[in-house]
Amino acid sequence: MKLLANIGQLATCRADGGQGDIHVISDAAIAWDEQGTLRWVGAERQLPPEYRGIERVDAHRLLVIPGLVDCHTHLAFAGWRADEFEQRLAGRSYLEIAQAGGGILSTVRQTRGATEQELMQRGLEFLENMLALGITTVECKSGYGLEEGTELKLLRVYRRLAQEQPVRIVSTFLGAHVIPPEFRDNRDGYVDLLVNRMIPAVARQELARCCDAFVEESAFTIDEGRRILRAGQAAGLAPKLHADQLTSGGGAELAAEVGAWSADHLECISERGIAAIAAAGVVAVSLPLASIYLNQPPMPARRLIDAGAAVAIATDFNPGSAPSYHLPLAMTLACTLHHMRPAEALKGATIYAARAVGMEGSVGSLEAGKAADFAMIDAPDVNHWLYHFRANACLMTSIRGKQYWSADHGAGQPA
Amino acid sequence: MKLLANIGQLATCRADGGQGDIHVISDAAIAWDEQGTLRWVGAERQLPPEYRGIERVDAHRLLVIPGLVDCHTHLAFAGWRADEFEQRLAGRSYLEIAQAGGGILSTVRQTRGATEQELMQRGLEFLENMLALGITTVECKSGYGLEEGTELKLLRVYRRLAQEQPVRIVSTFLGAHVIPPEFRDNRDGYVDLLVNRMIPAVARQELARCCDAFVEESAFTIDEGRRILRAGQAAGLAPKLHADQLTSGGGAELAAEVGAWSADHLECISERGIAAIAAAGVVAVSLPLASIYLNQPPMPARRLIDAGAAVAIATDFNPGSAPSYHLPLAMTLACTLHHMRPAEALKGATIYAARAVGMEGSVGSLEAGKAADFAMIDAPDVNHWLYHFRANACLMTSIRGKQYWSADHGAGQPA
Repeated sequence: MKLLANIGQLATCRADGGQGDIHVISDAAIAWDEQGTLRWVGAERQLPPEYRGIERVDAHRLLVIPGLVDCHTHLAFAGWRADEFEQRLAGRSYLEIAQAGGGILSTVRQTRGATEQELMQRGLEFLENMLALGITTVECKSGYGLEEGTELKLLRVYRRLAQEQPVRIVSTFLGAHVIPPEFRDNRDGYVDLLVNRMIPAVARQELARCCDAFVEESAFTIDEGRRILRAGQAAGLAPKLHADQLTSGGGAELAAEVGAWSADHLECISERGIAAIAAAGVVAVSLPLASIYLNQPPMPARRLIDAGAAVAIATDFNPGSAPSYHLPLAMTLACTLHHMRPAEALKGATIYAARAVGMEGSVGSLEAGKAADFAMIDAPDVNHWLYHFRANACLMTSIRGKQYWSADHGAGQPA
Repeated sequence: MKLLANIGQLATCRADGGQGDIHVISDAAIAWDEQGTLRWVGAERQLPPEYRGIERVDAHRLLVIPGLVDCHTHLAFAGWRADEFEQRLAGRSYLEIAQAGGGILSTVRQTRGATEQELMQRGLEFLENMLALGITTVECKSGYGLEEGTELKLLRVYRRLAQEQPVRIVSTFLGAHVIPPEFRDNRDGYVDLLVNRMIPAVARQELARCCDAFVEESAFTIDEGRRILRAGQAAGLAPKLHADQLTSGGGAELAAEVGAWSADHLECISERGIAAIAAAGVVAVSLPLASIYLNQPPMPARRLIDAGAAVAIATDFNPGSAPSYHLPLAMTLACTLHHMRPAEALKGATIYAARAVGMEGSVGSLEAGKAADFAMIDAPDVNHWLYHFRANACLMTSIRGKQYWSADHGAGQPA
């Protein structure tokens, strides 16, 4: 048994209440057992006698939050696309770049050519840096293979990453990222391949918990998306969607129809789409870094919240539109771009993000019975943390009660 | 004598050429002497014989840049205003917040009550973290005193900071930040006080190199600004301006008229203002973090560059509109918000920023005769660095040849 005590503010982030209800306990403590399960959470003066003599870690009156959940990343890829970033800034269009061999397909080419070991090594580095930022659970999508061998390779990388380092991984099959070049003139052939071969193979090998599809003019139609997600569901994979990012195409409505765990992006969501996902309980995942990198208007998060939807915040980490895994930066941007209050952004990166990856029962909030996944932040409260943006304000991350201190893993010096 | 060798790309950032000309040398080396002055800069294969046997530091084929110059900060202040950040996000107007005792004047109240030692301690922490990010020169403004005693106290803090830690400090007197509450009904009285007492006292005690004024509807008029800046010039202080931030009030034109070192903000600059500062050689300082935190349209940097102006990038670090000193983040935002290419942003945070604080002769570029102030960045080139935003990609910072490694000062783990 262990105790974290002298916590200035504990944001428990229980699910009940609205987007801004993070259920703060002042002068708090939390206790967990040898299995890394929380046994007690509350105000320290109410600590039951049986927890008073146990080993004690001092939180120095700082802020403690649930471990952050990054519920949307494309973590495993080869190469980078820094020069495309510069070309876009210089005015070159996405289409021109794609026609010159760039864009998603350039990452697909490089990822197909990379070994599992190369992808592992990079994934380990990314996850170590994410852990240092307070992130304890990461959703990881395939989608840079677009052929059975490489898609399964990416998902195997995620399985090994889950075994070889502490951050929890939720794997998502995104074979339906774009139509691969081999099937440019045979869309139906690729959808058949997804539905008849790849999804069954992923399910049989238990390589993913979710199936995602990019529903967009430049990717998959509503009907194709429905067919793919229904096939995933039949195989036991929970549906998620990239929806309404560049055009308003009814993706949110499809997410509601299939009962998706989340609908992500939603920059161009319609009023009907907002009503549909709010009614269906689909989590709306905002990706503010993509809005910043692409210099595009953000998701209408305020309207979604007002309609009763839960809004999660994630990085969208990928080598094209969001080449950063800095989730606290995405949270500060959610405040400034969406006019979300810091507490609302925190709920979006903890319990609602956990809901978006089907992990709400075990992580995302600090409650007895859940995992002892938490982060100690160098700030007196949530407002101060997300307002005073620093390289890294996380001093310590715990996963299942095991503590990783910033001095050990090279996190930023606190101010 | 010392040598930094095996540099993959050296961005020398010499002043000649345009905004994007950073004069990269591949496979480079630099040598400096015991005084910390650069003696030789070039391609390593051309290294003269006399530098071949000297002590050698390996740059591991990474990117090396001049030490970054943050040419606009309000570094010394007491308290924070995190709760105002939340209130603004919740829809409360700046005016309502100010009327409830918030805004700049709340920082003024707290700063007047702080001791020199308290301000020193915070300043040391900020500068240590800035150094870890690759920043070697910081402009620091007074302006949270608005009375002679506190204004001089702030400038004395900067003088002591310059003595007690390595980052170079350029001090600016900003008594003309806003009209203090004591002079609400006697504007002329405050301007008289600035011109007749404070500016002479600052100059006599050699406490500042520059004199700044906030020319804006809510602060000082053009005529008041002119009178203050001219008094500063007469006393030997170089003029700088906060201009055209919230309204287009002719601040840029005034900057050109008085020959200011820089005009800062410029979100609402007029076409006449653009032409005027380009013709006068006034550096246009962009503050992208303030645009992000206030969710306002950014400076028209592209039009300024096209008109021939030099655009510098700075943080505007202050407790209200830009509570972050993360200059590399400001640079990445300059790319996405302004459509500046990474090389253009780098020139803006090195040689042009040095020009904005009158230091172009000694820092801001890597050339023989200048100071050995540089940063080693965990990236192959400038495009990759500013595209792949990380907590901190700076591995080592050198000031006058003395090296500070990230492992020593707690910087982020590289990826």
